Amino acid sequence: MNKNIDHLKCVLCGGRYEPAEAMYTCEQCGPFGLLNVVYKYAEIKKEFEKKISKPPAHNENNIWRYIDILPVAPETPKTSLRVGMTPYYKPERLAKFLNHENIFIKDDGQNPTASFKDRASAVGVSKSFEFKKDIITCASTGNAASSLSGICAQMGIKTYIFVPKTAPVAKVAQLLLFGANVLMVDGNYDQAFDLCMEASKEFGWYNRNTGYNPYLLEGKKTCALEIFEQSGRKLPDYVFVSVGDGCIIGGIYKGFYDLMNLGLIEKVPKLIGVQAEGSNPFVRAFKNNKSRQLVDMVPETVADSISVGIPRASHQGLNAVYASEGEFMDVTDTEILDALKTLPKYAGVFAEPAGVTGFAGFVKMKKENRIHQNASVAIVVTGNGLKDINTAISCTTKPPVVEPSLTSVKKALKM
Amino acid sequence: MNKNIDHLKCVLCGGRYEPAEAMYTCEQCGPFGLLNVVYKYAEIKKEFEKKISKPPAHNENNIWRYIDILPVAPETPKTSLRVGMTPYYKPERLAKFLNHENIFIKDDGQNPTASFKDRASAVGVSKSFEFKKDIITCASTGNAASSLSGICAQMGIKTYIFVPKTAPVAKVAQLLLFGANVLMVDGNYDQAFDLCMEASKEFGWYNRNTGYNPYLLEGKKTCALEIFEQSGRKLPDYVFVSVGDGCIIGGIYKGFYDLMNLGLIEKVPKLIGVQAEGSNPFVRAFKNNKSRQLVDMVPETVADSISVGIPRASHQGLNAVYASEGEFMDVTDTEILDALKTLPKYAGVFAEPAGVTGFAGFVKMKKENRIHQNASVAIVVTGNGLKDINTAISCTTKPPVVEPSLTSVKKALKM
Repeated sequence: MNKNIDHLKCVLCGGRYEPAEAMYTCEQCGPFGLLNVVYKYAEIKKEFEKKISKPPAHNENNIWRYIDILPVAPETPKTSLRVGMTPYYKPERLAKFLNHENIFIKDDGQNPTASFKDRASAVGVSKSFEFKKDIITCASTGNAASSLSGICAQMGIKTYIFVPKTAPVAKVAQLLLFGANVLMVDGNYDQAFDLCMEASKEFGWYNRNTGYNPYLLEGKKTCALEIFEQSGRKLPDYVFVSVGDGCIIGGIYKGFYDLMNLGLIEKVPKLIGVQAEGSNPFVRAFKNNKSRQLVDMVPETVADSISVGIPRASHQGLNAVYASEGEFMDVTDTEILDALKTLPKYAGVFAEPAGVTGFAGFVKMKKENRIHQNASVAIVVTGNGLKDINTAISCTTKPPVVEPSLTSVKKALKM
Repeated sequence: MNKNIDHLKCVLCGGRYEPAEAMYTCEQCGPFGLLNVVYKYAEIKKEFEKKISKPPAHNENNIWRYIDILPVAPETPKTSLRVGMTPYYKPERLAKFLNHENIFIKDDGQNPTASFKDRASAVGVSKSFEFKKDIITCASTGNAASSLSGICAQMGIKTYIFVPKTAPVAKVAQLLLFGANVLMVDGNYDQAFDLCMEASKEFGWYNRNTGYNPYLLEGKKTCALEIFEQSGRKLPDYVFVSVGDGCIIGGIYKGFYDLMNLGLIEKVPKLIGVQAEGSNPFVRAFKNNKSRQLVDMVPETVADSISVGIPRASHQGLNAVYASEGEFMDVTDTEILDALKTLPKYAGVFAEPAGVTGFAGFVKMKKENRIHQNASVAIVVTGNGLKDINTAISCTTKPPVVEPSLTSVKKALKM
């Protein structure tokens, strides 16, 4: 356990826990009483500032650079895979195409298993070492699973993974090759989640589930810490993030919140949570007078990674948007697929459907003239396009087949 | 053009060219007279050493860190995608499994379009700016194409791409989404290559083909420069690399060669070129008394990226191995698929078949007891496993489907 942690605090009742005491959620509030990690900010501040004043050495170019404000002790085993420090691009051509100068892309598809989830899994696996657990489980639409499996493979931890049987084959193949024990659940993600929770209790496995395990959000927050550094400490006005369970946006908020507590920034950028129209409980709550109560639904969208009808990190997701004075918005599957085509074509960044949903939200807001021309905007791309090739293929037209002759080429190109 | 270039030198006749003079191969020797880029090493040395004495800043963590010994002028437009500076891992579990302590993995599947080829494409596209060409072409088994297309998309250059019609769908989808003009050639890579060469001459397109364009090797060499830095200047004894055309291994040799000329290392590690048994012209030459003459063949292997019967960078490929006192060896498709399973399972690194072929070579050499227990070994992984999901799937067993109930889970896990 990192000595820089002051306590864990329930997001609902404010109850305080010693870090070693409660492993998951608040004893009073149950599964929705998520615990936030509170650090000894005043004590950490100086050391942290000193560390980030210099660029990272070759072997420190990853999330562990931020160990001072991570919930893992310096001596705890950590994955050696390069998690985090993904690129932060300023895509000039895309900016021109969209007529919006200050766009930045945080490409988290460049993580070791090709999704944002590596940030959370890295911390989760280290926590399993601290709690002396040798089996980890999670439920996942695919990315959290392959991420957990990859990191566990590298570190030698056994995993049991629950995925909906509709998960894209690429993601399943990846996690099988990482040696995970996979169970395909004949149901959706929400059912896989509940089953995994039950199994974890029954068998005593360490539970890596998002919106339950308090430490995963801490891994996710590193994305915000990187944006802070990579932008040269000039934070964007807006950050667009795709939203399923609500924990990525919750994590990004936590990163900015910690930076504020460390006196490094004055305010959190407006966080814009973008959901698929067919899977939009957060948007419904937002439109319902910024309600803090989500209404469950049966999700349906092409963006499998955010196809979530019962968001598990509801409080943290809502809080991220409300506290930053952002908003929740949704986009149609058609808008997602359009974004899936625009981003690689103009920025050279190929992402999966959920990966471009934040970007689709920005495009929509821009079209609706709801964002100031000079506003600076960061868009988080959460997963690589290679993760869901079938959807990618559905967005393309089969290219012409030519005989190996110049005549055939000329004919095909109408030259 | 970078002023640090002294001249270009034909690998066959030794003929000298001014960098601006010959765009591709030697006028005397024709298409096999590849040109090597020779720098003003003595002049560069001090500046280069100074630069690499400090870790790269956040926005310099890519191949352009080595601009002093790259063939591109500092002011030439460069891709802003994060090419290079891929992780260099020391995978402890894998080392234990293979009973060989000093193994290092250079994971080039972590490049922006998920393959080693981004290194070459980045340099090639910058050269097209210097030569004022606005269309680029290449032939490719897939990776060079998606890499070229991705970088061109980001920079706004038009591309025509020739791929064999058997190229994996993931690679084709990727390059279509990057906006490339794709021609699927009804033939193999070798035929696609010839057709592309013809078309490039006919239409005046800038030719990014490997083993023809002298500057691509310069991009590829950055892998060796990174190994030098990331190993803390303690070079491995061996570097294992998969070999198709011979230009990746040729590029890696060139990187070490440049470091030697800069007085930074004393010798080049032994380079081990690993081919698929069904596509092994280099191995045949090596076994034929280290012949310098390759015999063409019709290739057939699961490792599509190195399925090459007429290697285009034959001289540079052969020279890399002969000059470093390494060797060429081959592995069967079964050995490649075994390696494809071992690497993710024990190192958390998921790679495509050609991506693990170098690793398969190491495993084989180790089994044959032909490598000293204490030798340090770097293995270059050239492409991400997500690039060829169908092959990955063929290596896995479909996991059990369970009803969403604990009883069903217990039954499936025999608990």
